[in-house]
Amino acid sequence: MNLSPFIGIDWGSTHLRAFRYANDGAVLETRRASQGAAGRPRDQYEPALRDVLGDWLDAAPKRIIVCGMAGAREGWIEAPYLACPRRLADLPEALATPDANLPVSIAPGLSTLSDDGVHDVLRGEETQMFGALQEHSSLVVTPGTHSKWAYVSDGVVHRFRTYMTGELFALLSTQSALARTIDPSASFDALAFEQGARRALSGGALSHVAFGVRAEALFGALTPPAAKSYLSGLLIGVEVADALKANDGVSIAVIGADDIVGLYQRALALAGGRAVIAINGEQAAAKGLWRIANARGAS
Amino acid sequence: MNLSPFIGIDWGSTHLRAFRYANDGAVLETRRASQGAAGRPRDQYEPALRDVLGDWLDAAPKRIIVCGMAGAREGWIEAPYLACPRRLADLPEALATPDANLPVSIAPGLSTLSDDGVHDVLRGEETQMFGALQEHSSLVVTPGTHSKWAYVSDGVVHRFRTYMTGELFALLSTQSALARTIDPSASFDALAFEQGARRALSGGALSHVAFGVRAEALFGALTPPAAKSYLSGLLIGVEVADALKANDGVSIAVIGADDIVGLYQRALALAGGRAVIAINGEQAAAKGLWRIANARGAS
Repeated sequence: MNLSPFIGIDWGSTHLRAFRYANDGAVLETRRASQGAAGRPRDQYEPALRDVLGDWLDAAPKRIIVCGMAGAREGWIEAPYLACPRRLADLPEALATPDANLPVSIAPGLSTLSDDGVHDVLRGEETQMFGALQEHSSLVVTPGTHSKWAYVSDGVVHRFRTYMTGELFALLSTQSALARTIDPSASFDALAFEQGARRALSGGALSHVAFGVRAEALFGALTPPAAKSYLSGLLIGVEVADALKANDGVSIAVIGADDIVGLYQRALALAGGRAVIAINGEQAAAKGLWRIANARGAS
Repeated sequence: MNLSPFIGIDWGSTHLRAFRYANDGAVLETRRASQGAAGRPRDQYEPALRDVLGDWLDAAPKRIIVCGMAGAREGWIEAPYLACPRRLADLPEALATPDANLPVSIAPGLSTLSDDGVHDVLRGEETQMFGALQEHSSLVVTPGTHSKWAYVSDGVVHRFRTYMTGELFALLSTQSALARTIDPSASFDALAFEQGARRALSGGALSHVAFGVRAEALFGALTPPAAKSYLSGLLIGVEVADALKANDGVSIAVIGADDIVGLYQRALALAGGRAVIAINGEQAAAKGLWRIANARGAS
């Protein structure tokens, strides 16, 4: 029997992913569930976890390592942010233990300060980075509702920035004056995406270039299906332009689901001049959770 | 009897303002009503106008000049955009006449193209500019849901840019992940506003700096009442930084309601180096409508 005594849980706001490992860390089985952390009462974490794990618990796992929003202040138990610069290898030493009849430990998030003293935070992405990164220096991007761009070198996260790209896309495409000129069910339009990304990469504030979606539509220069990809290109282009400006010319690792990683690869190609590698986000989380568990051992 | 035969109507999306003039153009009476143009069926413009004007119609006005969203494609009748560069004095020659039993004419909006060929549009602000501007050159700002920055010289609108500042403030402060850290009923906090404006003026994409509202709140560095003014400062700061970058060092005229004009004056003072004059937006609209009516005459 080569089943590991470890289980990994990536517990985000809207979903949960559970990983069961072989003794060598290979993922034997993955379960995806909709029991997200958002709005979940403290006493509803353990029941949700038992629901999802089910028969996995028959093997009496020794460690269940959780990362993500379950460790937020309003989550299961707060796993306080570790301030950057910070070694990713410090994560296993900073786990929080909720009151539960399961051997659960929750990974901390990271915090950073901008040059002008403003905080930024991430939670969940630290574990993906721990799982994905080799020893070389890299600018790491985890695209999403709130994209994170971290500068990591020799296993140390030096600083990072959040961009509310996914959330602004959702708000602008469904709730704003642009909504009536955007077809939310449209499939991806590469040309429109690159048009939007190019415009944003050449400068211009988001609050300005976004209005172009409406004005171009009024003149028949942008159709509702194309407008969806154009707006996506604008938002990702603004993010890429700003993030590259703030960082040295190192290589870039994009960690996420294949479709969104593809969008960032397109935008980064238009921005030019950087080596880009793509890393599957789910696999990175699974590996990071495994590394944390392994560092703590089974005793 | 010095009553003018002209009436002016500033018909926006959410409200309507009606102006009754003396023969010399002085505003004798102003009526403000909530019958906005947004979602109004074509056949519901004349009844709404009769409701608001009421006894003013007893004097059998010769001209009722309308500006704003009533002239949009989905409005009363489309008054097509005039392309920039455009003399403001051309406005009276381009009025649209809806099918009505009142002597109504609707002013056109303006359109422009960015250097990279993207459209922008405005409607209503052209009339405020016509009313407000003397012959000198100026960068004109009309703050609001969609702020407009126009470069006007010798009565010609050369180009302009829209910023979705007011709309993004509403979406971010009530619908986004920032909402729970913002007290929407808070009164103005000048220090927090200037802190936000300073951060935005020093660069950084909106999608990034906006997340600082959440992260600062997590560390107790920003209270929910202060967060409202801080976010306002961020959004106006991003707008001001971008608009000044795109325009020469001319003086700036801010046209709008006194409170919002005050916010822009603060942000512009932090940006530095420009002479700023404040112009009441309602008076500017009234005067612009008067000028249009006067140019057409009463016959």
